[in-house]
Amino acid sequence: MPQVAIVMGSDSDMEVMSKAASVLEEFGIEFEMNIISAHREPDVFFKWASELEEKGVKIVIAGAGMAAHLPGMSAAIFPLPVIGVPLKSRSLSGEDALYSIVQMPPGIPVATMAIDGGKNAGIMAVKMLAVGDDGLLAKLKEYSEKQKKQVMSKDEKLKKTGYKAYLSDK
Amino acid sequence: MPQVAIVMGSDSDMEVMSKAASVLEEFGIEFEMNIISAHREPDVFFKWASELEEKGVKIVIAGAGMAAHLPGMSAAIFPLPVIGVPLKSRSLSGEDALYSIVQMPPGIPVATMAIDGGKNAGIMAVKMLAVGDDGLLAKLKEYSEKQKKQVMSKDEKLKKTGYKAYLSDK
Amino acid sequence: MPQVAIVMGSDSDMEVMSKAASVLEEFGIEFEMNIISAHREPDVFFKWASELEEKGVKIVIAGAGMAAHLPGMSAAIFPLPVIGVPLKSRSLSGEDALYSIVQMPPGIPVATMAIDGGKNAGIMAVKMLAVGDDGLLAKLKEYSEKQKKQVMSKDEKLKKTGYKAYLSDK
Amino acid sequence: MPQVAIVMGSDSDMEVMSKAASVLEEFGIEFEMNIISAHREPDVFFKWASELEEKGVKIVIAGAGMAAHLPGMSAAIFPLPVIGVPLKSRSLSGEDALYSIVQMPPGIPVATMAIDGGKNAGIMAVKMLAVGDDGLLAKLKEYSEKQKKQVMSKDEKLKKTGYKAYLSDK
Amino acid sequence: MPQVAIVMGSDSDMEVMSKAASVLEEFGIEFEMNIISAHREPDVFFKWASELEEKGVKIVIAGAGMAAHLPGMSAAIFPLPVIGVPLKSRSLSGEDALYSIVQMPPGIPVATMAIDGGKNAGIMAVKMLAVGDDGLLAKLKEYSEKQKKQVMSKDEKLKKTGYKAYLSDK
Amino acid sequence: MPQVAIVMGSDSDMEVMSKAASVLEEFGIEFEMNIISAHREPDVFFKWASELEEKGVKIVIAGAGMAAHLPGMSAAIFPLPVIGVPLKSRSLSGEDALYSIVQMPPGIPVATMAIDGGKNAGIMAVKMLAVGDDGLLAKLKEYSEKQKKQVMSKDEKLKKTGYKAYLSDK
Amino acid sequence: MPQVAIVMGSDSDMEVMSKAASVLEEFGIEFEMNIISAHREPDVFFKWASELEEKGVKIVIAGAGMAAHLPGMSAAIFPLPVIGVPLKSRSLSGEDALYSIVQMPPGIPVATMAIDGGKNAGIMAVKMLAVGDDGLLAKLKEYSEKQKKQVMSKDEKLKKTGYKAYLSDK
Amino acid sequence: MPQVAIVMGSDSDMEVMSKAASVLEEFGIEFEMNIISAHREPDVFFKWASELEEKGVKIVIAGAGMAAHLPGMSAAIFPLPVIGVPLKSRSLSGEDALYSIVQMPPGIPVATMAIDGGKNAGIMAVKMLAVGDDGLLAKLKEYSEKQKKQVMSKDEKLKKTGYKAYLSDK
Repeated sequence: MPQVAIVMGSDSDMEVMSKAASVLEEFGIEFEMNIISAHREPDVFFKWASELEEKGVKIVIAGAGMAAHLPGMSAAIFPLPVIGVPLKSRSLSGEDALYSIVQMPPGIPVATMAIDGGKNAGIMAVKMLAVGDDGLLAKLKEYSEKQKKQVMSKDEKLKKTGYKAYLSDK
Repeated sequence: MPQVAIVMGSDSDMEVMSKAASVLEEFGIEFEMNIISAHREPDVFFKWASELEEKGVKIVIAGAGMAAHLPGMSAAIFPLPVIGVPLKSRSLSGEDALYSIVQMPPGIPVATMAIDGGKNAGIMAVKMLAVGDDGLLAKLKEYSEKQKKQVMSKDEKLKKTGYKAYLSDK
Repeated sequence: MPQVAIVMGSDSDMEVMSKAASVLEEFGIEFEMNIISAHREPDVFFKWASELEEKGVKIVIAGAGMAAHLPGMSAAIFPLPVIGVPLKSRSLSGEDALYSIVQMPPGIPVATMAIDGGKNAGIMAVKMLAVGDDGLLAKLKEYSEKQKKQVMSKDEKLKKTGYKAYLSDK
Repeated sequence: MPQVAIVMGSDSDMEVMSKAASVLEEFGIEFEMNIISAHREPDVFFKWASELEEKGVKIVIAGAGMAAHLPGMSAAIFPLPVIGVPLKSRSLSGEDALYSIVQMPPGIPVATMAIDGGKNAGIMAVKMLAVGDDGLLAKLKEYSEKQKKQVMSKDEKLKKTGYKAYLSDK
Repeated sequence: MPQVAIVMGSDSDMEVMSKAASVLEEFGIEFEMNIISAHREPDVFFKWASELEEKGVKIVIAGAGMAAHLPGMSAAIFPLPVIGVPLKSRSLSGEDALYSIVQMPPGIPVATMAIDGGKNAGIMAVKMLAVGDDGLLAKLKEYSEKQKKQVMSKDEKLKKTGYKAYLSDK
Repeated sequence: MPQVAIVMGSDSDMEVMSKAASVLEEFGIEFEMNIISAHREPDVFFKWASELEEKGVKIVIAGAGMAAHLPGMSAAIFPLPVIGVPLKSRSLSGEDALYSIVQMPPGIPVATMAIDGGKNAGIMAVKMLAVGDDGLLAKLKEYSEKQKKQVMSKDEKLKKTGYKAYLSDK
Repeated sequence: MPQVAIVMGSDSDMEVMSKAASVLEEFGIEFEMNIISAHREPDVFFKWASELEEKGVKIVIAGAGMAAHLPGMSAAIFPLPVIGVPLKSRSLSGEDALYSIVQMPPGIPVATMAIDGGKNAGIMAVKMLAVGDDGLLAKLKEYSEKQKKQVMSKDEKLKKTGYKAYLSDK
Repeated sequence: MPQVAIVMGSDSDMEVMSKAASVLEEFGIEFEMNIISAHREPDVFFKWASELEEKGVKIVIAGAGMAAHLPGMSAAIFPLPVIGVPLKSRSLSGEDALYSIVQMPPGIPVATMAIDGGKNAGIMAVKMLAVGDDGLLAKLKEYSEKQKKQVMSKDEKLKKTGYKAYLSDK
């Protein structure tokens, strides 16, 4: 039974959205992944969004570019948290998708991530689930500890080699 | 039987959207006017949008601010033209609504007007109806003629009074 | 007798504008296609725009980049709907063309599409013609149905293969 | 024992952030409210943020304007969800705060709300808590139902009075 | 016989454009002033722009807001210099008019001034005429000398009174 | 004796600025071309700008990127027209240079061209010189005629080959 | 003997720039304050900027709006640190001044403050002087301590009164 | 004993930040260089920032991209000057980092450089140290002299070869 539903409007969004999926796998969280367009198949979208709660889904992660309506419309139907990922497209650097997702009117929030922030969407979903799950919270702390160690080891390397060697080594 | 349906997500949009209504009245076109929120009542919105065609509606004019989804979602459901009006809100000068309406993905266009362009939305609807209605086209030309005369009379006044008197007279 | 006239200011706009032409062909709508610059040959442009109505043209699709005046000036002369396509150019991501086309003053609307939205311009023209043509409306619904099926088949493939295979398969 | 901690960097942010507090009160959720500046008292901030988990806080709502660091730094220390509210300030329409909050790097997400979106921050916190609390979820649905009815009654009024009376009545 | 023609699309632009007129008066340069809309009366505009050269006009100053086409279309028809003044309008801070005027394609330049820069448009026209008129050039230098003295006297006052008195005196 | 002085702050601006030079050559106008940085050698710059008038220079064309001060500082010293060319640089699409050049305060105008608009700067200089030179004006008209014919021949080709052949031929 | 020179291009900048003066007074640092326009009196400006070092000035604080050249040109002439303050003007929210000041090319940095950040300019000047002055550094720490206490006392008040009383009390 | 501490949040920032290091080396100034993330290891960051003063560090140069908090948080803890370098990232051209660094609230200034302005950060640090070090000031003047000569020799080459040869030679 999936706890998280990932949805994107087009398979061109897959590369970014798959990073959310990877995080969920790393944390052992069941999820479903969907390509559903609120614009091209509104009936399919409505049916899907209306049945999420009953299926036991607790969180939706929705990614979309341009005039991105998928996260906001998911939030209009699904009562639990929706995480939105604005995707960068060809012309406006993702600013169009960012505004279309984050500027939701009072009453229907979308938890908006950075442009192309697929990985952070996955982590935010884990954090939300960890609100009521101490085991998950413990894993999150380990995860942060790993992040920290990666930065520390880079700093050590820099201290050892100096910046010129570090740069030419990259 | 209304040929045009005007819809807005909140009654704070009424002042701009009423300008579309005034134009339609001036041209003798029947219309309905609705306050329906795609975000706050998605089921009401879907039902409404799905029944428009059957009711004989030929064109939808949808106005919305911020993360404006109403025009795009109308276009996803209603098969005939949707005209979108981005509304200026408190923080981003209407740029958020403009991007959310105009940047529609391939397949689901919205005919986007200027920010707060309610009057132009009404005129565009008339133009669309005039494609198949020569009487309406004739009225449109008269309408343009009136616009032209207004500018011409201002120019005459300027020529007569000079710019200083014109300015102090305003 | 062409029902739609496509016009662009430079042949560098051809790639985007040809997508509008393809859509019109797909729907069996006659159109003419022109390279006319309102800036470089204003007299040619004025003559052309003034004769459109008489030729039986019902809709103009005008694409332009930078300080894009072609759609707005077409709308100033041609009394029926003008659809504008802002083209992305080298420096400002198409934001300059978008503003130059969408921000038309009250009285002279241009139905503005997304940046580089040539395909949507074609579809919007079809929608406008379908206002008075039930056969065209039926074709539009088929067209949407095809769009829908494309998304659905991608979703099926994702469900079958999983996202990793889907990604590496792209 | 507070489940949610609201924090803002300055009391000029109180008006927007108090809307989050009102929502939490409406849902019967205990919260603490703080004025703590990550910039002016980093040691106080660090101590506060580090002790939140132990105090039983499950969610942080952080509001800040300009170069808004409070939400991101809270997310760097507190392991559970942080909701960020970009506040509009005098010069850049809140775009500075929006970018400073939403564009978090991979690994440390902030669930970003609209500019001045204090109310939505409260609702998002309730949604996160509702992930593991069916009673709260039921209340959320009632809350949405009320929103819906407000829009519906406005639409009814419009249908009854017509738009001119509606406008002059406002 | 006017050497400069000032044109604006609407009398709401008069306040800014009258500053150009004042400068021309101060320098004793004959000018005509017009309210002509390229959008609302394209035929009037074309006739006017085509006859300018014959009338002896040497420079056009054109001001417009929103999707500002008046300066660019003047430059398309009139062969001598066109100076453009982007006017600030309600929604986009004049950025729309600035882009619509300055981003002219290769071949048809418009000498663009700051947003609402009516005074500078007048000065630029004088500078252009001074290219071939040493008397005018001498006057320009006097004009600059006066500007300089105004700043110098303010600096003196500041030095004498100190900044606190200066501020409370304003 | 040069009538026009072209100046740029760095030789990385040469490619764009050489287009201005080509135009001047085409019109047989003498010019000098300089690499002078107002930032890196302010004394050299001041001396150069102060001596321009005496050398008989009538117009300055100044190109600069980023915080572009060269056009504005030239306008502060040289009393005749300065034409500014904002150059696109790595990070902000040339918007930084555009604002730094066009937004001059009242009293010191710069005739601003499009981003990377080197060619138009050359043409604008010719137009300014043509204010007092009928021979040059005649050449300008021929130049425009050539532009016009280029567009017309492209349109003819399109009409002959159709858009598909045209595209594949490019 | 002044250690810091404050300069602004117009007395309309006095209100923001006086905040820098107040900070310097509070720290007992001698300063001079000037209204000098790099655009309107370039010779006065050059003389002034060239003599600063000899007068013993160690730091320049320069404020300017629109196409703000004063900070960058000061940095081109004065060899020690220049602090730049972008001033908000009527049309572009101060973004024009920010870009004109911060985007300096390699070799001539300006230490840029927030839009209208006069107070921070004063503090940054103190910090620079404190690099070699332990007494000043001690005062800076006291100053920060006071800032901290102000925030803490607001937080105490909030804890005591609750947010509703706090808000109505403001 | 390092006088300057360079810090960046990720080794992807190394290329830009190494330019600051090169400048410091050129001027013979001792520095330390660190990869420390305020987001991924806030405790490490706090400890590091709190110990800088004691270690004798006089100036911090901090570079960061996206929601760049490293410079501002360094300024919150370290009492002497912090120089901030906004780094360009994938989606928003560095505008996000610029706003996150420059728009610091009153009381905690960051001396902000251009986007990717690593070299200027190094030079600004030297200027700050030169406030109390005449030897360093002398070196700065030599450095500027070299910059000046580079531009002058380019200008000479241009004068000798002409712009066509110059361009093809590049």
